[in-house]
Amino acid sequence: MNASQRFGGRSPRWSRRGFLTGALAAATAVRARGTGPADVAGPAPGGVSVLVFDVFGTVVDWRSGLIAEAGRIGRARGIAVDGPALADAWAKSYQPAMDRVRSGELPWTKLEGLLRSVAGDLLVRFGLGDLSVKEKEDFVHAWRRLPPWPDAVEGLTRLRRRRVIAPLSNANVALLTHMARAAGLPWDCILSAELVRRYKPAPEVYRMVPEMFDVKPSEVMMVAAHEGGFCCGRRGRW
Amino acid sequence: MNASQRFGGRSPRWSRRGFLTGALAAATAVRARGTGPADVAGPAPGGVSVLVFDVFGTVVDWRSGLIAEAGRIGRARGIAVDGPALADAWAKSYQPAMDRVRSGELPWTKLEGLLRSVAGDLLVRFGLGDLSVKEKEDFVHAWRRLPPWPDAVEGLTRLRRRRVIAPLSNANVALLTHMARAAGLPWDCILSAELVRRYKPAPEVYRMVPEMFDVKPSEVMMVAAHEGGFCCGRRGRW
Repeated sequence: MNASQRFGGRSPRWSRRGFLTGALAAATAVRARGTGPADVAGPAPGGVSVLVFDVFGTVVDWRSGLIAEAGRIGRARGIAVDGPALADAWAKSYQPAMDRVRSGELPWTKLEGLLRSVAGDLLVRFGLGDLSVKEKEDFVHAWRRLPPWPDAVEGLTRLRRRRVIAPLSNANVALLTHMARAAGLPWDCILSAELVRRYKPAPEVYRMVPEMFDVKPSEVMMVAAHEGGFCCGRRGRW
Repeated sequence: MNASQRFGGRSPRWSRRGFLTGALAAATAVRARGTGPADVAGPAPGGVSVLVFDVFGTVVDWRSGLIAEAGRIGRARGIAVDGPALADAWAKSYQPAMDRVRSGELPWTKLEGLLRSVAGDLLVRFGLGDLSVKEKEDFVHAWRRLPPWPDAVEGLTRLRRRRVIAPLSNANVALLTHMARAAGLPWDCILSAELVRRYKPAPEVYRMVPEMFDVKPSEVMMVAAHEGGFCCGRRGRW
């Protein structure tokens, strides 16, 4: 299931195929004009001036990326690593850690800290328990190297012409910044839950955007290829 | 006077002519390799992985930009506005406002709020007191449209190949983001005093960088074409 909506509004849906092109159609009621620097600075049509994006699953293909990384590390050590199982286990295991931060049981910890905290057990479980500290850190940084969906860079580039575009992810700033460099994502700035030290769906994360850009919440559109990011939006909590 | 230094280190100096090329020479002891996406993701030579920049004066020419904006607004109203005097007065007048935030006399206010707070008197003083609210806001946004120095975009693009580059400015995130769009500045992310709600030279602003990127302070280099930004550095306070 897919969704994209204004802050506080309802969710139209698209398939992930051509997802960012769909977001473009939704955000832009006017015909596309030329490209170029002057165009980048132009006004935003359609009343939306800032587009913020969920990242894992919406912009990058975390599962294929982690499977590839697991394959690489396994081949280098002559081990057959079950990449899909490792990818799914990792994605699943940092969620409870994030919940512990959400509940206040753990103090604020940025996402790469949580990914690191669960990586040790995961590596043992998948036969990679003998990695060096440096290799483990490189493994954690696999998330910085996740590949963009095939339409992501082009779609974001088109969306960026007339609007500010930024991730609005639970991933920390460094992860998102290195990901943008590696994947060529043309973000205007990096917005992260880290900046307010609360994980989505805490309303502070969403509220940060209109406050920071001095725009009305209705001028901000959140784009995500899943429903999860919108529980606050659906509840109209910001 | 010009300066560029590692956090906590000493300041080599260059003239502003070719300033960012000078920063490149200082940060990179190895010969330049090819360009391209793979290169962007490559490792940082020379022990510096993150370069942060002062913006006003170092990357953009605030004075020429404000003079041009004053000229534009004056011509539109048939008034001879003293652009240089207006530019200097504005740049000077927001400093005491920033000091009031630094001292705690004013609560945290982002830079565009301070620029706005002094703009009213300034406009009256320079014969532009009859601007509409919308025109005044556009005038405040002149800072978002400041032109880059002629070598800035090329210099930053080269510096970005092997290092994360970001502003580290007292200007707020929205100002810096819109400035990057208008001027084509290829920042990897936008870092601002706003993120820690303290103005430079508060050490929290500088400390944010190594903390956020999980690197040692010695891996961060601050680049500025003036001495002012370094009072903390010279004191070794971070």
